[in-house]
Amino acid sequence: MRKLEQMLSPQSIALVGASKNLNKLNGRPLKFLLEKGYAGRIFPINPNYESIADLPCYPAVSAVPEPVDLAVVMVPARLVPDTMRDLASASVPAAVVFSSGFSETGGEGAALEEEVRQIAREGGIALCGPNCLGLINSFEGVMASFSQFANGETPPGPVGFVTQSGAFGTAIAALARNRELGLGYFVNTGNEAGVHFSEVMEDVLADDRISVGAGYLEGLADGNWFARTAQKALELNKPLVVTKVGRTSAGAKAAASHTGALAGEDAIFQGVCDQFGVIRAPDEEVMLDVVDAFASGARPSDSRLGIITQSGGAGVLMADGAEERGLTVAALQPDTTRRLKQIVPAFGAVGNPVDITAQFIAEPEIFRDSVIAVMDDPAVDIGIVWFQLMHEFVDQLMDVFRAIREGVSKPVLVCWVAGPADGISQLRELGFPVFRSASAALNAAGAAARFGKHRAAWESERNAAEQPLPSPVDLSGKGVLPAMETFELLTAHGLSLTPSRLCATAEQAMEAAQALGFPVALKIESPQILHKTDIGGVVLGLADSDTVRHGFDTVMQRARAAHPDATIDGVLVQAMQTEPSVELVVGLKQDPVFGMVVMLGMGGTALEVNPDVVFRKAPVSEAEALRMLDQLRGRGLLGEVRGRPAVDRAAVARLVAATSTFAAANADQVAELDINPVLASAKGARAVDWLLISKGGPRR
Amino acid sequence: MRKLEQMLSPQSIALVGASKNLNKLNGRPLKFLLEKGYAGRIFPINPNYESIADLPCYPAVSAVPEPVDLAVVMVPARLVPDTMRDLASASVPAAVVFSSGFSETGGEGAALEEEVRQIAREGGIALCGPNCLGLINSFEGVMASFSQFANGETPPGPVGFVTQSGAFGTAIAALARNRELGLGYFVNTGNEAGVHFSEVMEDVLADDRISVGAGYLEGLADGNWFARTAQKALELNKPLVVTKVGRTSAGAKAAASHTGALAGEDAIFQGVCDQFGVIRAPDEEVMLDVVDAFASGARPSDSRLGIITQSGGAGVLMADGAEERGLTVAALQPDTTRRLKQIVPAFGAVGNPVDITAQFIAEPEIFRDSVIAVMDDPAVDIGIVWFQLMHEFVDQLMDVFRAIREGVSKPVLVCWVAGPADGISQLRELGFPVFRSASAALNAAGAAARFGKHRAAWESERNAAEQPLPSPVDLSGKGVLPAMETFELLTAHGLSLTPSRLCATAEQAMEAAQALGFPVALKIESPQILHKTDIGGVVLGLADSDTVRHGFDTVMQRARAAHPDATIDGVLVQAMQTEPSVELVVGLKQDPVFGMVVMLGMGGTALEVNPDVVFRKAPVSEAEALRMLDQLRGRGLLGEVRGRPAVDRAAVARLVAATSTFAAANADQVAELDINPVLASAKGARAVDWLLISKGGPRR
Repeated sequence: MRKLEQMLSPQSIALVGASKNLNKLNGRPLKFLLEKGYAGRIFPINPNYESIADLPCYPAVSAVPEPVDLAVVMVPARLVPDTMRDLASASVPAAVVFSSGFSETGGEGAALEEEVRQIAREGGIALCGPNCLGLINSFEGVMASFSQFANGETPPGPVGFVTQSGAFGTAIAALARNRELGLGYFVNTGNEAGVHFSEVMEDVLADDRISVGAGYLEGLADGNWFARTAQKALELNKPLVVTKVGRTSAGAKAAASHTGALAGEDAIFQGVCDQFGVIRAPDEEVMLDVVDAFASGARPSDSRLGIITQSGGAGVLMADGAEERGLTVAALQPDTTRRLKQIVPAFGAVGNPVDITAQFIAEPEIFRDSVIAVMDDPAVDIGIVWFQLMHEFVDQLMDVFRAIREGVSKPVLVCWVAGPADGISQLRELGFPVFRSASAALNAAGAAARFGKHRAAWESERNAAEQPLPSPVDLSGKGVLPAMETFELLTAHGLSLTPSRLCATAEQAMEAAQALGFPVALKIESPQILHKTDIGGVVLGLADSDTVRHGFDTVMQRARAAHPDATIDGVLVQAMQTEPSVELVVGLKQDPVFGMVVMLGMGGTALEVNPDVVFRKAPVSEAEALRMLDQLRGRGLLGEVRGRPAVDRAAVARLVAATSTFAAANADQVAELDINPVLASAKGARAVDWLLISKGGPRR
Repeated sequence: MRKLEQMLSPQSIALVGASKNLNKLNGRPLKFLLEKGYAGRIFPINPNYESIADLPCYPAVSAVPEPVDLAVVMVPARLVPDTMRDLASASVPAAVVFSSGFSETGGEGAALEEEVRQIAREGGIALCGPNCLGLINSFEGVMASFSQFANGETPPGPVGFVTQSGAFGTAIAALARNRELGLGYFVNTGNEAGVHFSEVMEDVLADDRISVGAGYLEGLADGNWFARTAQKALELNKPLVVTKVGRTSAGAKAAASHTGALAGEDAIFQGVCDQFGVIRAPDEEVMLDVVDAFASGARPSDSRLGIITQSGGAGVLMADGAEERGLTVAALQPDTTRRLKQIVPAFGAVGNPVDITAQFIAEPEIFRDSVIAVMDDPAVDIGIVWFQLMHEFVDQLMDVFRAIREGVSKPVLVCWVAGPADGISQLRELGFPVFRSASAALNAAGAAARFGKHRAAWESERNAAEQPLPSPVDLSGKGVLPAMETFELLTAHGLSLTPSRLCATAEQAMEAAQALGFPVALKIESPQILHKTDIGGVVLGLADSDTVRHGFDTVMQRARAAHPDATIDGVLVQAMQTEPSVELVVGLKQDPVFGMVVMLGMGGTALEVNPDVVFRKAPVSEAEALRMLDQLRGRGLLGEVRGRPAVDRAAVARLVAATSTFAAANADQVAELDINPVLASAKGARAVDWLLISKGGPRR
């Protein structure tokens, strides 16, 4: 059951503020509905007319004698509230509001938008907009839009496109049409006073006729809904491809002045995309390249690429680009190489990339047989075929590709450089996605492989029993928690922390050091002293009882000298790890878009200068935590380096997963957790310093 | 005077092996020459015919009664040597050999190619090919090619295109034509038995009608020539844009199997491009985008970008992409903002990116005035204008852009998404480069700004007196040089090395330590022991005379135990730097393509796991060395970090420049120099360990 069915697939449409001039903005939807043969009922609404285009015209939606599924509102902003009240009184379930002059214009407009939002909410109206170009369902000719894009062919297709930007969205839709990529849905959510991007996308993806979702995003109204939508997309095997702007600080600044919307921290958005298999495209061209491959059904299960080309140079270019996009140039099996030797001319190349040379123009079977041989190889998951021009040989090429269509079940992407438009059209009709350049095809293949691998991981992990979250603890009003309280809490939640004891006297400290084992570290413990090292409140590497005694006194004196009024709880005695290890950091924070997120990064100086961190929405499994590790630029340091054995990755993953589980169970209470450093060695991964801050309490 | 003038601008052309069938490969050049109105003399050569296409046909070039500038050789490979001998006897200065069956086919073909190369060299024939598609000079209708590209319009233009690949080069040329980018020259150098890429490019750039060079490369025959050509291009203010494949290991592997040519170490090629202002494009699309901007004359002097768009979203996307391409989103001056407030609708944005909204369709002067206002701002160096569709408003747009053409002298790149072909054509005729997407325009603007900055630096540094190289020293046959000999040598060349003394006895070591100052390090010195730490041959941080005595004995014992037969020269005593510092590495090596190259990188563990290094061809100035520093990913670590003051960058630059000068003076003798680590602090930069290996001597 689709929640927004009446908005996206209405049986009847009212056009509020319809003009008799079908070329005006408020006349266009009627023109488009008539042109595209919308089969439902259409009710023009305008108190000034009896009829428009031979359709009876009503003074208000409430005057329409039949049920209205969707109202398209095209009246000036100041009239929108009354219109919405009229819709509510007529129990209209959905509305698209084109009108601008709302929050995008500032204070007064924002107040008006809030009024409209309230009316919609109370009236149970699913509202799209305001300040939007509307929506198109091209399957059923629902042209509830005045977009320039609607002014032309809108052939139905498997792509559901949702855009927050009207103008840019129109451009993207037009580009999709130019490459014969059918948009089943085009929805511009505008100011999102009612439905938002994720909500619409969820509904669009639920339509069986849609096989891929494409989105243009500036900011997310509801990060949790986005994550849920992404998970559903993964479950449905319908890739979700998004371009989100505001990635950089310059972009975020521009976005803020554009929509006032918070772009959100990009690294966190990227982390959520990686977590739930959302494919992120840097711009509209890459978005459409990737969508094109998905729309053709490309769902490779892995990333081993077969390349067949008529140009050795293009082959090399693709081998270069493959690696960068997470593809591997497949190592063909000896059988395949033998088979290719029978097919490919002597001056070509039978390794991958396979160079069939221009000889195929004279002997098209060289082309056909090479592609089939490569794609038959079990070591190949997806193929790219590259050739150029061939304006005079379109018919021969079509024969070749018909045979490939029949002989190959794995995805084959075609790169036809500077090819003739009619040839490309014919090839698309055969079901091949056709790209203008090797890079475009590689972007698509890389994304397809990424989605495939993500889905395979999801399938293998889906049956792992979901761990129930532990009961929440009560941290209310605590603010910064004392180190030992945090120690107990996190240890109880399965985190591995360095054994520590809080000591009030030097004697206790010596005893503790004896029990924990030398060498030890001493750290002042006081709710008022958070930056302990700054005041000399930490001493390290104490190797015997005497130095511990002396160290205890030193630390206490320094603390009293620096903070005479501080409450001093004592000194924390910690066993020091002597194993050679790598410094990592693990943390939790509250993101305004996604809620509780967990962070993993390389520690040490780099954290300040050149941060190398990845995020996920909490909780994450250990398998997901391992994928986080694999995304760190410094991941190589976790291997064997200069005689230090490789780090116990599983131990790091356990720590991250346990931290995230604690976070998810206590999302309402935890403001922030910093574990820095975590020392990871061949023998495990242990937190050395930690700071937990609860919501609502006193902050640093 | 152009060296290859008779090849590239021949007054007469002989077609050796010409066919009567002008559609066959060996008939096509004549057809193309006639079609494009070549004004010089044409001589078909074929013993079987009296005439071809009403032109008298000769049995051999030597039988032609007039001088022949260029011979196009289209005979089977085995007949090429005799043909070349005939050309030599007729004193023909240039030849293009289409024939394949040479080194690209293996051993026998390689021998044949060597024979042809010899004949050309001895006969003084400038040879293009073999195994190439030939060359086109579209200014003068010189169609010495059978490329599919020639089969259509080849309008002259300011782009000189040289390609090592025939098939891929043809595709690139066709793409250039599709976007109405005129190629003045198209030259495919094929197997490069005679002229090579850099040689041809140098000559092409010397043509006044050419304003930008574009190249497709697989490997360089002559790295020094490439560097020289790049420098000339910079001097001429004619950007050189290249796409070089074989960047990654997968690509290099594919390249090796494709052409057998060594792709060369990519990081070194990249370094040379950065050094001499060559713009590198990752693929043919970016290459053409960049070339397009340059061909329109775009030569911004800096990187401050003004963005004018009809879509806030597109503006944000561009702000994101600007940063990534080294552009800065210009901060408009208050005057400009005030001016824009009078022009832009209230719901638009007057900050940069400027969002003029769709209102300009009704009021085109909004568009015109906004662009002029932004480009008038002294804080803006280059502009991008973004809009979409507008099929119905082409005329109005042309009025707008005519006014911009007249009112603006700085470069304005136009991004017209999904625009009508005729509109785009008209805009190009007005002199604007037009791009299909924001990313494409940004790539072009970024490259233009990079070239502009590079040229500005070159202009400001060109008058710095070129330092004469010091006299070479004699290192012949030395192999690994003793540490103190290297110390003296490098110190004399201006490098800063840690004060060190070689000591034969413990007493000498104690004395040396006293003189150098504590703490000191001891390092075993033996020509047979290169990996000193592996055998415990290094002890650090010795703080007084007693530990030095003891350390000396320990190091000697360990060395004798590990290498009983080694000649032990003694123990090196070194002052230890106590200043907090950053580890760098500096090195020299012989590159097979570019000769002596200097390397600068971050030191420490990262060097092994995740190398962060940049290269240049030696020598480099201190200014260039500073630019090397700025290219390190870890450059942030050189600033102030955790209380450690910023590193003395100038000292690092002096060390790199001095190293490179030593290298250039002794390029024939030095095989390798490793300085690792260099400790860089606020007080300077000093080499701590060094290893110099001369050519020809015993190696490690």
